[in-house]
Amino acid sequence: MTYTLILLRHGNSDWNQKNLFTGWVDVRLSDQGVTEAKRAGELLAASGLKPTILYTSVLTRAIQTANLALETADRLWIPVKRSWRLNERHYGSLQGLDKAETLATYGEEKFMTWRRSFDVPPPELEDDAEYSQVHDERYAGIDGEIPRTESLKIVIDRMLPYWESDIIPSLKNGDTVLVTAHGNSLRALIKHLDGISDDAIAELNVPTGIPLVYELDDNFVPTKPAVYLDPEAAAAGAAAVAAQGKK
Amino acid sequence: MTYTLILLRHGNSDWNQKNLFTGWVDVRLSDQGVTEAKRAGELLAASGLKPTILYTSVLTRAIQTANLALETADRLWIPVKRSWRLNERHYGSLQGLDKAETLATYGEEKFMTWRRSFDVPPPELEDDAEYSQVHDERYAGIDGEIPRTESLKIVIDRMLPYWESDIIPSLKNGDTVLVTAHGNSLRALIKHLDGISDDAIAELNVPTGIPLVYELDDNFVPTKPAVYLDPEAAAAGAAAVAAQGKK
Repeated sequence: MTYTLILLRHGNSDWNQKNLFTGWVDVRLSDQGVTEAKRAGELLAASGLKPTILYTSVLTRAIQTANLALETADRLWIPVKRSWRLNERHYGSLQGLDKAETLATYGEEKFMTWRRSFDVPPPELEDDAEYSQVHDERYAGIDGEIPRTESLKIVIDRMLPYWESDIIPSLKNGDTVLVTAHGNSLRALIKHLDGISDDAIAELNVPTGIPLVYELDDNFVPTKPAVYLDPEAAAAGAAAVAAQGKK
Repeated sequence: MTYTLILLRHGNSDWNQKNLFTGWVDVRLSDQGVTEAKRAGELLAASGLKPTILYTSVLTRAIQTANLALETADRLWIPVKRSWRLNERHYGSLQGLDKAETLATYGEEKFMTWRRSFDVPPPELEDDAEYSQVHDERYAGIDGEIPRTESLKIVIDRMLPYWESDIIPSLKNGDTVLVTAHGNSLRALIKHLDGISDDAIAELNVPTGIPLVYELDDNFVPTKPAVYLDPEAAAAGAAAVAAQGKK
């Protein structure tokens, strides 16, 4: 018995376009992101994979991506579950800042630490800041505190319980699971699935809009390396993510 | 304590456009339907009503309508539940037929009986017919038999258990519930809520794309007549529905 898990990072957003740190700020897909999401649906349909349940974060750009992909693949009708635990990493006080300016102001070392360090979060975002989420009603029922900043380690700590409590039971149920989420919540899951070290995860970049397919065994361990449905585009996309901020 | 329930009929579909009986055939919104759905989102946003949970059928046109309306109202992130029990009435062997041709072929009496009779369903659709749903995987887990035809009475009988088992508990939970569905599944619910007789329901037409707002008391009985968020457009829309087939 094997299980099928499909991971999909949302398409390009308005703020990817503008090269701003986004995190939990609820921006929308850019026109390019809409095109990427529909293309993800075409790749899904062409692959013959048929997701039977959808998981998303509670951020609009991930939900838009899932909706467009599933509409394209004629599977808009499958059940949906959403959780803040699949959200992008909270970028703390960097949320809303220009990536290139941040790089210029703070220098490469600090910049790369904030972007890629495993357990050093950026400075906390003040509760009265423009891009704070402490008053956002979608987080009113959150268990525990709304984050003010997160490292990748913190993302793993809040994402994995949801993987265990909700996504694994869907897989056990025989569902083909589609998870539509974000660069860092997906890196967190991939790190767990592929047993990537705290150091090596820094080099892993997830391209936008290209479904990544895992086959998992009874212990939810990959039976073989995961496969992007368009490997060539995925490699180019990952390189583009790695180069971000360096414009 | 009162509860808020918002009903929304999907916007104009490709087959409304072509004047065909649709039922369970999974057609998409027309461009006009997309516009209507976004307008429904604007009406919701302007009203100040904030749905906190969404219920849809498993038909694409209703899901598209809900997604577009919620995206417009900036509430794409709310939880979603879908059920075949909110589907349009199954139109039996009429599915896929032209309404005007059907009227011309069978005459006004039969035509109006099939469209508006409370408990006379159209002839059953054959399982090997082009527009049968018996092999559609979304109905694989349905409890009981997949319908081959339905009267409004049958729609009520399969819709009300879901109202009781799922939607009422959400209302009790304090949620503002948005139900995005179809002409006949919403007529079924409205008949129940407003205590409309089996005869009088024939005259009730639900316009597309205009949210209808109920305030319900502790017994889930309306405290006052339900209100369309754009009453003028709703009246014109209901008249247009009543005139269907007579082109």
